[in-house]
Amino acid sequence: MMADFVAVDWGTSSFRLWVMARDGRLHGESRGPEGMSHCVTAGFAPVLAAHLARAEAPADLPILICGMAGARQGWFEAPYADLPAPITALAAKAVRLPGHLLADLPNPRDIRILPGLAQRDAAHPDVMRGEETQLFGLANQAIEGLVCLPGTHCKWANLQDGAVTGFASYITGELFDLLSRQSILRHAMPETYAIAPDDPDFLAAADQAMADPGLLTEALFPLRAGQLLDYRGREATQARLSGLLIGAEVGRQVAGNALKSVTLVGQQGLGALYAAVLTRAGLSMKTVDAENASRQGLLAAAREIWRF
Amino acid sequence: MMADFVAVDWGTSSFRLWVMARDGRLHGESRGPEGMSHCVTAGFAPVLAAHLARAEAPADLPILICGMAGARQGWFEAPYADLPAPITALAAKAVRLPGHLLADLPNPRDIRILPGLAQRDAAHPDVMRGEETQLFGLANQAIEGLVCLPGTHCKWANLQDGAVTGFASYITGELFDLLSRQSILRHAMPETYAIAPDDPDFLAAADQAMADPGLLTEALFPLRAGQLLDYRGREATQARLSGLLIGAEVGRQVAGNALKSVTLVGQQGLGALYAAVLTRAGLSMKTVDAENASRQGLLAAAREIWRF
Repeated sequence: MMADFVAVDWGTSSFRLWVMARDGRLHGESRGPEGMSHCVTAGFAPVLAAHLARAEAPADLPILICGMAGARQGWFEAPYADLPAPITALAAKAVRLPGHLLADLPNPRDIRILPGLAQRDAAHPDVMRGEETQLFGLANQAIEGLVCLPGTHCKWANLQDGAVTGFASYITGELFDLLSRQSILRHAMPETYAIAPDDPDFLAAADQAMADPGLLTEALFPLRAGQLLDYRGREATQARLSGLLIGAEVGRQVAGNALKSVTLVGQQGLGALYAAVLTRAGLSMKTVDAENASRQGLLAAAREIWRF
Repeated sequence: MMADFVAVDWGTSSFRLWVMARDGRLHGESRGPEGMSHCVTAGFAPVLAAHLARAEAPADLPILICGMAGARQGWFEAPYADLPAPITALAAKAVRLPGHLLADLPNPRDIRILPGLAQRDAAHPDVMRGEETQLFGLANQAIEGLVCLPGTHCKWANLQDGAVTGFASYITGELFDLLSRQSILRHAMPETYAIAPDDPDFLAAADQAMADPGLLTEALFPLRAGQLLDYRGREATQARLSGLLIGAEVGRQVAGNALKSVTLVGQQGLGALYAAVLTRAGLSMKTVDAENASRQGLLAAAREIWRF
């Protein structure tokens, strides 16, 4: 089978492109660090053109993009879709790039960007861009219920009858980076970052914070003092910081959610840390591959848009 | 009465010097932004010499310093004193600067640095440098009970029978700066920082976080989303961030402490925000001046050290 379209996951700091057939078969791929942050100054079209060439994508294929390229500060804004959002709503709100933005591409063609999702709830306002496509990839595989998508801004979403019905974002990953690199705690951190999911300090801190998420605010300065007064080494201090942050997040989600199982998107690195804490929270877990979820979501949306 | 000694409060980012008599009378003063961070590269002695000249301090006066100049990374380390610490213990652990460090001063003389305090408790390790001197200034005025010292790292201490018996530090002020200037939330913040203590968004957020300090972790990303989705403006978003952070801190302290009154050190700026939240927490409050507390503490320690 020939390739039918090009799928692109264009995040804040990463770019991934797949040349795909309508049956999901992969014909080529290319990836790089040219996320939105890079392209805001360097331009979007040249980056896309370079990756199309690298993946040897046929010149006439339409392109479907998800992620931050559709943010207001991205390439071309794809306004948010509202909840509850089934895949059809997402596909219907994809925006088509106007011709003047395609001037730098060797072969101007049908290029569309999928919208993000907005939760328009005054008490729990939230937004996502990119993760909605992974969620639709899961919905397309008949996955339902609570889904956890670890990352700089971890998302927790509910999938029901193929639609996203609600979600919550936590800046846990960003907080970890800010605290360990730029706050007073940096003086108590090791040079390199490598927390094992079975690290006893990580797990003990996660247990404490899950049981009492409010602990976080008072447990931060003592991380520095504990290292300074020789109660804990630098590696253990970093593991404890991560455990406190992830534990507080999981504690809030588990406390507010009656579900006993969760689908975890991504099982490497940060995903493995979340997996360890979710297990300790007593949740049964199904782990799925993050990239595959993106591809499946883009494929499902492409089928809606181009009717193949 | 003639001047008897020079008192210096040498913090991370500020320098304050007072020429004082044994009865507390002020004979001269000088201040500047040359805190420890500046002096680590620029040198400590030249900064001290310049301020001595500016305050027209008599050349033979002994000098007593408190604060970060005594940190390991400061001018000369004054190892921490342990709890429970009365003023006599603090004075006894003051270190005298060795002669080679005084070479850059026009008149080498008796210069001592007061130690900070360490709470050597594996479950609640903590340290302070500079605030202990303010606390002893209060103890010297017969103030007892819970004391709150707002700042980049806010301290809560218990004073009993003239001694510090325990304390807890929160990085609330630093977190506010990191989150509003360097995290995703910076996109939702106004250019300038000016939260009024009676700002309704500030107070509402403080009430929420006091009632449920664990809310903090899940309420951060929604600050950005709420501004993006037009539920709240930039000023209100910043006020809410501050309210959440201070409210969570006060909530933890009030929940864990049976005391119904508190002494607040500093009533301007950040101090006024803490005062507003402490009032809403139902605490009766006595406010005292931070600088005066430092001077009183240095005076009490100088009397112990030089027996005048």
